[in-house]
Amino acid sequence: MPSPVNLAEKLASFSDLWSPRIVGRFNGHDLMVVKARGSFVWHSHAETDDFFLVLKGRLTIELREGPVTLGPGELYVVPAGVEHRPVAEEETHILLIEPAGTPNTGDPATAAVKVAI
Amino acid sequence: MPSPVNLAEKLASFSDLWSPRIVGRFNGHDLMVVKARGSFVWHSHAETDDFFLVLKGRLTIELREGPVTLGPGELYVVPAGVEHRPVAEEETHILLIEPAGTPNTGDPATAAVKVAI
Repeated sequence: MPSPVNLAEKLASFSDLWSPRIVGRFNGHDLMVVKARGSFVWHSHAETDDFFLVLKGRLTIELREGPVTLGPGELYVVPAGVEHRPVAEEETHILLIEPAGTPNTGDPATAAVKVAI
Repeated sequence: MPSPVNLAEKLASFSDLWSPRIVGRFNGHDLMVVKARGSFVWHSHAETDDFFLVLKGRLTIELREGPVTLGPGELYVVPAGVEHRPVAEEETHILLIEPAGTPNTGDPATAAVKVAI
């Protein structure tokens, strides 16, 4: 029988930060949940937009043109090629969508390994 | 300045059912919110997966292999070519993602016109 993907249950199954877990696939993209706290690195993705939907907490996406802050139920798409740095003061839970195989730092050498759960 | 997309605010701006509104774009896809109540039509999309994330309410996606029911914070991806029928007993708010231009019924002749808000 088909079953839904419960994002809160998926998020409750791990605790490490900035380490996306794959929870589904959609048109060649990975659907991922991630826990964030602190500052990530400035980076960009030349080939893909970057989708962020906050599920819990508060995420600021710093952009060269200024910051955008997201609370629960708010989303933002960073266009391809645009430099950005995610920052979260409290632990924040996010739904991410990126083409399968996209390095989360923009650089395969420093990227997290994405595991399906 | 960049600004977030607040899904609840977008949903509060219209009241018609089964009429997706475009709230953003991502890698050639439309990000849409829709209000559902009652039964939609059985349909499939030959060329694309169909992404459903329930924001409020309760959605059953009937599939030939059996139904899957989603509450808030739950998602399901109907694979390309798979027949399905969304059904909601109460008014239900959903985030949808489909390639830009995808007819919501699977047939351009009967599809809703998708407006950006």
